Amino acid sequence: MAETLAERFDPEVAAGFIKGNEKLTGLVKFLDLRIVDVGPGTLRAEMAVRDELLTPFKNVHGGVISAVCDHVLGCVCYPVMKRGQWAATTEFKLNLLAPVTQGTISAVATITALARTLAVVRIDVSNEGRLCAIAQGTVTIRDPRA
Amino acid sequence: MAETLAERFDPEVAAGFIKGNEKLTGLVKFLDLRIVDVGPGTLRAEMAVRDELLTPFKNVHGGVISAVCDHVLGCVCYPVMKRGQWAATTEFKLNLLAPVTQGTISAVATITALARTLAVVRIDVSNEGRLCAIAQGTVTIRDPRA
Amino acid sequence: MAETLAERFDPEVAAGFIKGNEKLTGLVKFLDLRIVDVGPGTLRAEMAVRDELLTPFKNVHGGVISAVCDHVLGCVCYPVMKRGQWAATTEFKLNLLAPVTQGTISAVATITALARTLAVVRIDVSNEGRLCAIAQGTVTIRDPRA
Amino acid sequence: MAETLAERFDPEVAAGFIKGNEKLTGLVKFLDLRIVDVGPGTLRAEMAVRDELLTPFKNVHGGVISAVCDHVLGCVCYPVMKRGQWAATTEFKLNLLAPVTQGTISAVATITALARTLAVVRIDVSNEGRLCAIAQGTVTIRDPRA
Repeated sequence: MAETLAERFDPEVAAGFIKGNEKLTGLVKFLDLRIVDVGPGTLRAEMAVRDELLTPFKNVHGGVISAVCDHVLGCVCYPVMKRGQWAATTEFKLNLLAPVTQGTISAVATITALARTLAVVRIDVSNEGRLCAIAQGTVTIRDPRA
Repeated sequence: MAETLAERFDPEVAAGFIKGNEKLTGLVKFLDLRIVDVGPGTLRAEMAVRDELLTPFKNVHGGVISAVCDHVLGCVCYPVMKRGQWAATTEFKLNLLAPVTQGTISAVATITALARTLAVVRIDVSNEGRLCAIAQGTVTIRDPRA
Repeated sequence: MAETLAERFDPEVAAGFIKGNEKLTGLVKFLDLRIVDVGPGTLRAEMAVRDELLTPFKNVHGGVISAVCDHVLGCVCYPVMKRGQWAATTEFKLNLLAPVTQGTISAVATITALARTLAVVRIDVSNEGRLCAIAQGTVTIRDPRA
Repeated sequence: MAETLAERFDPEVAAGFIKGNEKLTGLVKFLDLRIVDVGPGTLRAEMAVRDELLTPFKNVHGGVISAVCDHVLGCVCYPVMKRGQWAATTEFKLNLLAPVTQGTISAVATITALARTLAVVRIDVSNEGRLCAIAQGTVTIRDPRA
């Protein structure tokens, strides 16, 4: 499948994600989650831990990590999809492995399987070089609405 | 177990969650997610859909729904835990069933199993009376750090 | 959706599942898992715990419960699908809540959402009236291969 | 963590799993699932596809793959646990990626995180060199019952 992903890879779409960091909106802007590397079937995003992302117990809110996973799960698919198609997260499962209190959070998404209408993706989330969450999920790839 | 949950239920802790809506912080403030009903082993939270929660495709970001699930997953446990203990989301799995574009999102968490150090919780997320996501997850209950 | 499930319900397909108990094969025969009740969007299957299903620690093997969940996840969809279509488990997530040592295991599958090519299903597994596992998963509904 | 796993690794327990292939019982005997390689935090098991493992549609039953995942999820933990402790699958999530019809099924489990009472494990299941399922789950590690 590696070759197929490489063949499908659209570098312009990938570059668009990097450029998009300059005009984040909504949840992604709140998180200040930036896509820093995009390859054929892989994507890495990073965010700085700041007070606003912590719970009253001073750990990064699990909902922050969840939202990061949901976001990269869909994004990793676009550069290997046809233009005009869109990716909808169908489901994912997340294990939180360790609390995070400071530094940078880095999420790496990797496409494990890609079919015509479905992608299965794994995500590794790390903080200062230590794995803090892992996830696995399914994206539905849809053709443009007529 | 229903009786056990009722016996364990601490109405003061439950009332504290409702009062807490007036001083939301961080991610929960960004979401403006309010806990509106708390019972023995159940909790309901609501949020209004607003532009800031949408993706550029004008659907509520899946990460918003994910974050809501993570939040209620932990919160539902506190009123049936001992004071001083804390609840950490260990893992959860989410299925997104339908896109959401407007109105109110309501998430109902229900404890399915409760042991000394673990709770298993199911969540129903609905929008304008229609189910839009379901989740299932595990919370680890920890004694106060010495 | 309840009405839609009722409208789609094919009682002949449902009756075929009950008749099928007389000629179980393969894994389902090994488990001796019998479908005892089928309704529009619901299905209940039962099996007797016997020594062959236990681990050396004398609990029912988690793999037995997993296999039961996978089986009912697909089966519950057939009576509300078009004839000729087939259901493939795409993914599921299972929480094991309590060890099982004897008696009868009963698994109830309920369709939570049904779209043209996808069903999302929840499963409650109980043993002697006590919940011992819960699951949640996705089934892909496929048209007949040409 | 890699070093810790290596330090904890008990080669005698690992060797016991290989020897155990000669006296399989119950579900594992039905599957004829053999543990062929055990390392610090990794374990590989294999089984031959045979008619008895197929559905009437001639694919390996999803319940077979599920059961394999549940089994290796627990087994991979024993060689890095203290003697006398036992491992109970708490939960796992499985994505089935491709149908399997013949040949050998190989499941590789890898411990991703290991704490005092919890392990998080990922599993890759392949068939004839092609990935056919991936899983992620949690094992609870318990001290001997007094």
